Amino acid sequence: MTTHHPFDQALALEPLAEGHYRGQTHPAYWNIVGPFGGVTAATVLRAILLHPRLLGEPLSLTVNYAGALSTGPFTVQATPVRTNRSTQHWNVSILQTDAQGEQVVATTATAVTAARRETWSLADTPMPAVPRPEQLEPVGSVGGVEWFNRYDIRPVTGAIPRQWNGQGDSSLTQLWMRDQPERALDFCALAAQADIFFPRVWLRRALHVPAGTVSITVYFHASSGQLHDTGTGYLLGQARAQEFRNGFFDQAVQLWNEAGTLLATSHQIVYYKE
Amino acid sequence: MTTHHPFDQALALEPLAEGHYRGQTHPAYWNIVGPFGGVTAATVLRAILLHPRLLGEPLSLTVNYAGALSTGPFTVQATPVRTNRSTQHWNVSILQTDAQGEQVVATTATAVTAARRETWSLADTPMPAVPRPEQLEPVGSVGGVEWFNRYDIRPVTGAIPRQWNGQGDSSLTQLWMRDQPERALDFCALAAQADIFFPRVWLRRALHVPAGTVSITVYFHASSGQLHDTGTGYLLGQARAQEFRNGFFDQAVQLWNEAGTLLATSHQIVYYKE
Repeated sequence: MTTHHPFDQALALEPLAEGHYRGQTHPAYWNIVGPFGGVTAATVLRAILLHPRLLGEPLSLTVNYAGALSTGPFTVQATPVRTNRSTQHWNVSILQTDAQGEQVVATTATAVTAARRETWSLADTPMPAVPRPEQLEPVGSVGGVEWFNRYDIRPVTGAIPRQWNGQGDSSLTQLWMRDQPERALDFCALAAQADIFFPRVWLRRALHVPAGTVSITVYFHASSGQLHDTGTGYLLGQARAQEFRNGFFDQAVQLWNEAGTLLATSHQIVYYKE
Repeated sequence: MTTHHPFDQALALEPLAEGHYRGQTHPAYWNIVGPFGGVTAATVLRAILLHPRLLGEPLSLTVNYAGALSTGPFTVQATPVRTNRSTQHWNVSILQTDAQGEQVVATTATAVTAARRETWSLADTPMPAVPRPEQLEPVGSVGGVEWFNRYDIRPVTGAIPRQWNGQGDSSLTQLWMRDQPERALDFCALAAQADIFFPRVWLRRALHVPAGTVSITVYFHASSGQLHDTGTGYLLGQARAQEFRNGFFDQAVQLWNEAGTLLATSHQIVYYKE
């Protein structure tokens, strides 16, 4: 795929051998001390989707951030460890050479892809009634967080606190989002957008403490057909924490398209300090 | 640890080399076509906890059921692929020799363990107000599901339908549970109990269709001290689906102890037919 969209540039992988790729961190998706975690999750998924032995479409993806990637090249190893009739199980790792010349594991991941059949289906989590994205203001830039400029983000509720006054009272964020510039939704973009929410601890406490995702899981409910129908439309994302305890909190996420189809659900466990 | 409790017998692992163990499926936790998935998740965690290079306590665990284990021996390989100052990242797999004498991957898993420090903490998901376990009746046996007899399960709402009449209207189950015979709670038992809920599709549809977990993730909020305080008390478990789509649904779970402490949150993606 040749495209000039920065998301595709960031996900560009050069095949070295079957399931083995070389990539490169991209300044357009840089976070404070490494790439935006959503782009790392998308890179893991891209390596699977490029694999010649791929069966089906993404069903679940778990990405563990073992260490921040440094600026520069990295390698991705994606291995289908078991292929059943309709599901396939993947191990993926991202490795980088450290200052001592040693290969270090930066990211571990597992995934399941599945050849899905049409069955009885039921949408059991209606999209909340919220204003349309056109009625809301996009948030501006956040100093030093370059990847934030790659998304058009329009909060409904639970935006980043304007005052760090320790007076937070909820961990709920609802926001509309899409790639900026616009880009038709695919599985990699969906995985990335599952990780778009700032740390719940900032909102719940209205305190700006150090925090970072340790592990994220995404369950894909959408087919590629439903992603195609979503096109360049906005997604409504909802994120909420359940528990903050001794340095880690969890976050539960739902992502709907504008038509109200639940495309993915996601969870993560996040480190925080103090 | 020497104990006669069947849960400990089922989790017995004989070390072969560092991080490499031999185990054996146990009839007391047999499900219909393989072991109870909760015991498989607990076996993965036990292999990590036995490892001489373990850092900290369990924080997150993702187990992917690539194929059912057959009756008999299996091997577990647990590898700490990266150790940071306060977190450690694990890859685990369970392998079994198939009828052709080949080593086959039955289970893949990743986990993060962490040395946690006391920080600001907040319980943000209160335990629902429900009758105490002593006021409720334990469910009886389920024919052919031996592991079900290893738990004292007392449904509050959303028990297995008595009539498979296609008239379900909710996916919510709340139930009290504990090991039977009683056993003091530990991380392995907590991981197993996160998988105790029967498939949501049975409840939502009141139809008994084939179904099985593909991947489960558990986030551990409790410390070993809080597990110790829980002792042999009951856990209140709550499970709910968010979406049923083309052969797979997701399930979100919370587990509190009787004192109302949220010990773990969990999610799974589950295959269903028809």
